[in-house]
Amino acid sequence: MIYLDNAATTPVHEEVLEEMLPYFNERYGNPSSLHKIGREASNALLLARKRIKDKIKTDSIIFVSGATEANNLALKGVMHASKGKHLIVSSIEHESILEPAKSLEREGYRVSYIPVDRYGIIDLDAFEKMINEDTVMVSVMLANNEVGTIEPLDEVIEIAHKHGILVHSDIVQATGKMDIDTSRLDLITLSAHKMYGPKGVGALCIRDVKIMPIIDGGGHEYNLRSGTQNVPAIVGMGKAFELSDKFDYSRVKELRDYMIKQLLEIPNSRLNGHTNRIANNIHVTFLGVNGEDLIIKLSEKGLAASTGSACSVNRQKASHVLKAMNFSYEEITGSLRLTLGIQNTRKEIEEAVEIVRDTVTELRKVSPFSKHL
Amino acid sequence: MIYLDNAATTPVHEEVLEEMLPYFNERYGNPSSLHKIGREASNALLLARKRIKDKIKTDSIIFVSGATEANNLALKGVMHASKGKHLIVSSIEHESILEPAKSLEREGYRVSYIPVDRYGIIDLDAFEKMINEDTVMVSVMLANNEVGTIEPLDEVIEIAHKHGILVHSDIVQATGKMDIDTSRLDLITLSAHKMYGPKGVGALCIRDVKIMPIIDGGGHEYNLRSGTQNVPAIVGMGKAFELSDKFDYSRVKELRDYMIKQLLEIPNSRLNGHTNRIANNIHVTFLGVNGEDLIIKLSEKGLAASTGSACSVNRQKASHVLKAMNFSYEEITGSLRLTLGIQNTRKEIEEAVEIVRDTVTELRKVSPFSKHL
Repeated sequence: MIYLDNAATTPVHEEVLEEMLPYFNERYGNPSSLHKIGREASNALLLARKRIKDKIKTDSIIFVSGATEANNLALKGVMHASKGKHLIVSSIEHESILEPAKSLEREGYRVSYIPVDRYGIIDLDAFEKMINEDTVMVSVMLANNEVGTIEPLDEVIEIAHKHGILVHSDIVQATGKMDIDTSRLDLITLSAHKMYGPKGVGALCIRDVKIMPIIDGGGHEYNLRSGTQNVPAIVGMGKAFELSDKFDYSRVKELRDYMIKQLLEIPNSRLNGHTNRIANNIHVTFLGVNGEDLIIKLSEKGLAASTGSACSVNRQKASHVLKAMNFSYEEITGSLRLTLGIQNTRKEIEEAVEIVRDTVTELRKVSPFSKHL
Repeated sequence: MIYLDNAATTPVHEEVLEEMLPYFNERYGNPSSLHKIGREASNALLLARKRIKDKIKTDSIIFVSGATEANNLALKGVMHASKGKHLIVSSIEHESILEPAKSLEREGYRVSYIPVDRYGIIDLDAFEKMINEDTVMVSVMLANNEVGTIEPLDEVIEIAHKHGILVHSDIVQATGKMDIDTSRLDLITLSAHKMYGPKGVGALCIRDVKIMPIIDGGGHEYNLRSGTQNVPAIVGMGKAFELSDKFDYSRVKELRDYMIKQLLEIPNSRLNGHTNRIANNIHVTFLGVNGEDLIIKLSEKGLAASTGSACSVNRQKASHVLKAMNFSYEEITGSLRLTLGIQNTRKEIEEAVEIVRDTVTELRKVSPFSKHL
């Protein structure tokens, strides 16, 4: 199987797994325990925090179960702790931002959604006009998970801080793939399993921000998140951050650019998103093709890819990101996301191009859409 | 190290880890992905659900990050979805019940706390009198995590259902250690890492109960919990449940009873909790000894144990469980919890008795309390 769905999840890196293993059944203690086995575990958490802080400039790292929980904690945690009742988010955020935002709306908060252009770039003027006395925070992702567009986060921070509002950014798709200046972000969402760390762990990094927990109990993470820490996964996350410098995304980018060039030679294809995109992302539309059929056929032929966001198999509704970018129904339907990883070889990419080309041709022969072409 | 802190956490069983391993870097897919690698992951979730359902009679299993999250989801999820505003919990619940209860009180809900007797058994009459038209649910744990007392859950269910209120039970300390009839429970909290499964995973089992999510997003778990599922950990949890029949807790109970007998020969010692206690729990008080000093000395001598609840090293406040049982300050201070596991040997237990006896004697020589003896 050629795996080009690295934005959905990545395999755990060999060195990451190696470092995790002793924490399952040798150094298996509960980090809250006072004895030696417990201290081994709490020391492991310290090292993981240090390794992440070496890459991400922040004050506190709150370990949680993943980026979805971190995003929920960021939005609900900050709004519940604030006097202001207005939140701003971009319209192309991940569901783990948009759904908590809707949940806050049901609680009586007001949420504004920043529109984007055809390339997925947020409208900074529209954003600034949304800010009022009641505005607490803005949440804008660094790189979009579907189309890969990199957002003008520096400008967002500039505008937000000028008006005294907090900035949260979900940077999970960008971490390890580009230089990121996190020094002025107030809250940052991190994930491990998009960067060769394990699933089931993420973090919310915070500066001097008042926040209310969403999971109460023993107070394990600075009284802001309770529950016995997932030690092996946290160890793995720390290692993945340490390793990330070694991951060669310039090579990934070259392969990506080669693949884009090849794919655009397929008739009636177009590249979606902005030229300023995350190193491993390809998002194309093949007019006259149904994306779900395409994914399934590609899988049969040994290529793992995605259409729209891979985040929920349960509700295959049209991508809210592509809708926000004002794509037509046909453009959305024919969309294909290919996300490369450090493990992919040139040979795999060449093969993948062949598979996509053949499959698109086949599907167009039987597609009810293709007659319009 | 002799590990007698199995109520805090357990090592991951060899067979559990073996089954988890391929899901880190071979079958590493995102269960929401439509392609083959994704389907391998979603099939693994199906198997885990089946294995748990073979032991726990319930309708739906919502995988979460651990028992703390499950308890939060049970309490907040049910109360947020209900018209009624009154919740009943026992006064000796884990912090992951009591803190969400306090959080609900801050939101305007009313919470009643069922008192317990000297042995940690809840007062059923008091419970029944608490029920009124506004009462939605009662939450009572099956076995207490500190003193091991088994609660009269059948009677709780009887009374609750007679009055038409839901019953939630956190059964994490009991699972795998005794026969449990879960058929009449409306909501059940499960954990993996207390029964030789991995940390970072738990479940809330629900019947026909209306519930609101606390973590919103892609809707991965029946739209009741979002976030990419922690596949390797869920696989491990399923395997731990499957294996649990093979765990010989009658042997553990024998060792436990032997150890209790030996420990009670130490002067001024007493057993806490009820005779009807969970198979692996010993909770004793050594008058004239400081529990924290005891834990640290025991650790130096190679024995891992706990005083009060081991769930938070950050706030070493006196145990709320022992307070609810009306223990004196001295009785609480001198408390020691030893929780055995299937991996402990007779030889370890014999050594542990020696270590405890010697350490208690030593500490009493220097203790400011011991002059009262």
